[in-house]
This record gives sequence, structure tokens and C-alpha cells, in this order.
Amino acid sequence: MGDLKDGRRRPTIRDVAAAAGVSRGTVSRVINGGHWVSPDARAAVEDAITRTGYTANHAARSLATGRSSSLAFLLTEPQQLLFADPTFALLLRGATEALAQRSMTLVLLVADTAAERANVEHYVRAGHVDGVLLISSHESDPLLASLIEAGVPTVCTGVPLGHRMYVPTVSVDETESARVMTRHLIDRGHQKIAVITGPDDTSGGRYRLVGFREEMGDRFDPDLVEQDVYSSEAGAAAMTRLLERAPDIDAVFAASDVMAVGAIAAARRAGRRVPEDLAVAGFDDSGLAETHDPPLTTMRQPWGQISSAMVEILIDVINGVPRTDLVLPTTLIVRESA
Amino acid sequence: MGDLKDGRRRPTIRDVAAAAGVSRGTVSRVINGGHWVSPDARAAVEDAITRTGYTANHAARSLATGRSSSLAFLLTEPQQLLFADPTFALLLRGATEALAQRSMTLVLLVADTAAERANVEHYVRAGHVDGVLLISSHESDPLLASLIEAGVPTVCTGVPLGHRMYVPTVSVDETESARVMTRHLIDRGHQKIAVITGPDDTSGGRYRLVGFREEMGDRFDPDLVEQDVYSSEAGAAAMTRLLERAPDIDAVFAASDVMAVGAIAAARRAGRRVPEDLAVAGFDDSGLAETHDPPLTTMRQPWGQISSAMVEILIDVINGVPRTDLVLPTTLIVRESA
Repeated sequence: MGDLKDGRRRPTIRDVAAAAGVSRGTVSRVINGGHWVSPDARAAVEDAITRTGYTANHAARSLATGRSSSLAFLLTEPQQLLFADPTFALLLRGATEALAQRSMTLVLLVADTAAERANVEHYVRAGHVDGVLLISSHESDPLLASLIEAGVPTVCTGVPLGHRMYVPTVSVDETESARVMTRHLIDRGHQKIAVITGPDDTSGGRYRLVGFREEMGDRFDPDLVEQDVYSSEAGAAAMTRLLERAPDIDAVFAASDVMAVGAIAAARRAGRRVPEDLAVAGFDDSGLAETHDPPLTTMRQPWGQISSAMVEILIDVINGVPRTDLVLPTTLIVRESA
Repeated sequence: MGDLKDGRRRPTIRDVAAAAGVSRGTVSRVINGGHWVSPDARAAVEDAITRTGYTANHAARSLATGRSSSLAFLLTEPQQLLFADPTFALLLRGATEALAQRSMTLVLLVADTAAERANVEHYVRAGHVDGVLLISSHESDPLLASLIEAGVPTVCTGVPLGHRMYVPTVSVDETESARVMTRHLIDRGHQKIAVITGPDDTSGGRYRLVGFREEMGDRFDPDLVEQDVYSSEAGAAAMTRLLERAPDIDAVFAASDVMAVGAIAAARRAGRRVPEDLAVAGFDDSGLAETHDPPLTTMRQPWGQISSAMVEILIDVINGVPRTDLVLPTTLIVRESA
């Protein structure tokens, strides 16, 4: 392989096949998406790609198609949320894997301030990515509207309020999921159940509250509702306010695991044991739910399926294949906190 | 502003200035980098940009310069490290801020497997970014060599072993920093001091060990050295091995805060109190050092300065201005763990 690396001639797919001890067809399948290839053969080909210094002729493909072979993972939230809320890492990992299988590059962009949105919008519209996976869209987000207007292929997670007609989404049934968790808390015999929900301009914030209210029926008490952003600090502050108003609550449904963690910390500071004095349930089943003390009872969102479906739908949209919304199921995970 | 948003005509810098109540020059300075603008004026202009729907004529600038107005933040590590080690978040935040001041976009790329490296290399070489901030380079990393060969403007953090001549770096004095921490442990009266260092193919892993060895002098005992990857699990495993070999060690210098956290957990499982029975020091002063129980004694790396200097040097390189390496100072931060 020394000759190849020294640049005598550009290594070809034939060289990779010889180095890996597989057929050229196998190499081609690895390069073009990895379907119908055994893990062993895939590893051998990846190793041979490294050893030979082979690079696929992406440039020719890009010229022919006018595409960049990349998708943006666009987060329209403050950058620290990317690290503070483990759900983003789960989505990012799933999308990266789905793209790697297609020999495409994932480009992570963060647009929080107006200036950042303007820069990102320019970058996307200049064709540096083929489409956008839009993560965590608020109703007030002007970026989605301008991407749609500019004809940039876009897929959202969650249902972007106000843009229902224009962009395919991958989401879970927020209302029904919240009803399932609320029913769980009722069935456990809790008498005074409060809710901490997310921002009203996100579908999760709005419809998890709707589901809670529907399932509570006559039991619903508007005095036991808190609404805030999806952060641990906000969950703690909401719990503190609830306990001041209604010290006798015996269960709280928090609309995200991160909020639930903050709520549990605040409950402890107020002298409540969880779950003995106060049950606290979350939503998401992000990584922290299982390792938290106590482990969180939560609604599992199918993160891997959400991200791989977003990638699949976006690639269809780029290729001109019409796609409709996809709603994926959630699962009640009963652990110790509620 | 309604007329503008409805698309009658494209909003101009004059519209933004009128909406913000500032001069056109101020708007222009905000758009072109934010220098010499008060925070209030900057906020007013950003708000006016949102309200008017103004987008800078980046496309014309890109056509004129052949540039994408973006830099890649390229991480050649497994993606989960981005979330497991808070130092990456600190670097990412600093780089994002430095770019936002220049109206440029930060593009986060992760290249771990050979296939991902090939895709990312193609993406970068196709001109979708103007240059690369290469984060955490291992000596064996083939991507750096191919970026250099392709003439892609690149700046590294840490000193990439084996490529010393070719690429400007921003780093700290690893050897001297390790000597300062080792001297602190000696001065505290510890008699049997062990070290857990990082991979030998990273400058941190190699030269922090060199500094430890130099400062220990005759006290240096090769039996009290462990070397592993920069993860909490690796730090825990290394501490367990050390305690089995040498149960009477009274201090450990771990070459990263994340490793120190794992090492402390393992020491506790082995019945040692930190710092009463065993002092454990870290390196980095990443976010977790201050909030850890006990708070970590560590060497602070100047993360904000590192990332802003990397951006500044990279932009100079893109503009053809020759730059040399930059070495920034570290600070001993004494808290409770050592």
C-alpha cells in the first residue's frame, strides 16, 4: 500500500477491494450506504479505506447532482441546552448514524440570536447543505418560515405550531402520551396531582398539558399547573412555587426528565422524600432517567427512530418524493420516582 | 414594518437603522463584526434585524471572495465525548462567540470512523467551510495530514505530535503546568504520589507525564504511573489498578478533571475518603471541577482565550497572514480535593 499512499496514483475501489479481501461490489455497497453488508465485511472495508488512502469521488457526484452530500442538524436553542439536555445528544447520535450509512456528512448548526439565525440562514441558502433537520422549533421561530419560503428541504421534530401545512414532521402523540402518564399517577392512588409543563409555544409544552387536563377530568385544578422552560433550574423553581401554594400535593408530572430532576432537587430541599412523600414523573427517557437517584418513571420517546425517520423523510423530500407527517409511539417506563 | 415583512421590497440597512434608531454606520459595524458598538446599540440592531426581516447580502460577498463565511469546529473523537467531556462545550462556546462577532457561521463536524473522516474531508475540501479548527488531535490521526496536504487552512489546539512544522497551534505549556501541580502535591506533604495520564499519542498525555516525572525527580516511581483514555471510566479503572498495586498512595494527579472524577469514585468504592485519605487533583478546570463534591483542585486552561485565539489565527491564515504557535498560561486552582 506504500506506493498508493506516496501518491503515485489515486487509489481506486479495486485497490480497496483487494486490501479488504472482498469484492468490488461489497466496497461499493459500503461506500454507498452500507446496506446488505455484514459487520465484518464493513469493518474490513473501512480499514482498507484507511490503509489505501482511498477517497470516494464525491466531488464528481456533487458536480453531477449539484449537492453537498450533507444535512444540517439545526438547533434553534441556546448552545448550552445542547449539553444540558441529553435528548439532543440522543437525536444527534441517531442522525449521525443514519447519515454515515449513506456516506453523507452531518453538519451541526446552532442559531439562537437574531445574528446567528441570519448567518445560518445564509449558510443554508447558499447550498452548503442539502436540507435541514430542524430541532426543537418554537412557534415564534422566524427561521422555519424563512427556510420554507426559500424552498430549503426541511423536516421538523415535534409539531411546529403555526407551520402545520408546510413542513413534514416526526413527532410523538403528545396528548395521548401525557394521558398515559397521568392515568399511571391516578392509578397509583395519588389524590392531588400537579403538572409542570413546557413553553406554550412548543407542541410538547402545549399538548402534554392538554393530555393531563383531559385525563384528570373533574380532578383538574388550574392552581396545580406550572409552565416554564425545559431546564433543571426551571423545574426546581416550578416545584418550589407548587409546594408554597399547595403543600399537600402528592404527585407531580414534569414534562421533561431534566425538569423532573430539578423538581426532585427542590422537593428534597423542602424536606420531601421522593417517591415516599411525593411522586415525580418525567417525560423523554433521556439518558439521565435511568441513572438518576431515584431512577425516573417517565414516557420514553423513541429517539433513534425519530432521528432516523427524520433523515429518511428529509432525503425523500430532497429527491422530490412527497412525505407526510409521522407520529411514533411512546412507552410508559415505570421506575422508582413515581 | 409590516410592509417589509410582506415582501413588497427587500429590507435594506437603512430600514434596519431606522427601526433601531441608530446610524447606518452602527448597523454596518454590528453586521461586520460588532466592534466599537455598545451592547445596547447591538441589541437594538439585532432586534431591528429580526423585525425588518433584513438579511445581509452575504451571497454577494461570498461570490466576490469565493468564501463560505464559515469555519469548521472539527472533532476527531467519538461523538459521545462531545457530551461526556465538558471541555469541548467550553471550546465550542468560545469559538461560537468569536465567530458570531465576525458574522460567520460555526459548523460542527464530527469525524471518528474512517468513513466519517472520508466524508468530512470531502466536505471540507469542497469549500463548504473556509478553514478548520481541529480539536483534540491524536498523532495517529490521518485527517490532519490530508487537510495540510490539501492546503486547507487549519489551526490545532494542543500540539499535534508529528505535524509540528506544518500547522499553527494554540496550546498550554503541558510540561510546566504538570510541574506546578506536582509541586503543589509535594508541598502539601504527600509522600507517595501517583499519576494517571492520558494517551501517549496526545501532547497532553505525553507532556503532563514528562512534567510530573521532572518535578518528582528522585521521588519518581514508574510503578505509580497509569496511562489511559480521557474518560471517567478510564480514570476509575486506573485508580483501581493503582490501589491494588500500591494501597499506601496518598495523592493522585489525574491528567483531566473527567478522569479525576472517575478516580475519586473508584477510591470511594475502595473505602478511601477524598481528600482525607487520598488527595486527587485534576487538570482542565472544566465546568464539573467547581461543582464536584469535593470541588476539584485542578490546573485551569484558559478555554475562552484558547478558542478565540484559534479563530483569530485561523482567519489570519485564511487571509494569507503567516502565524506561529501560541502558548497560553495555565493557573493552579486550589479547591478541596487536593
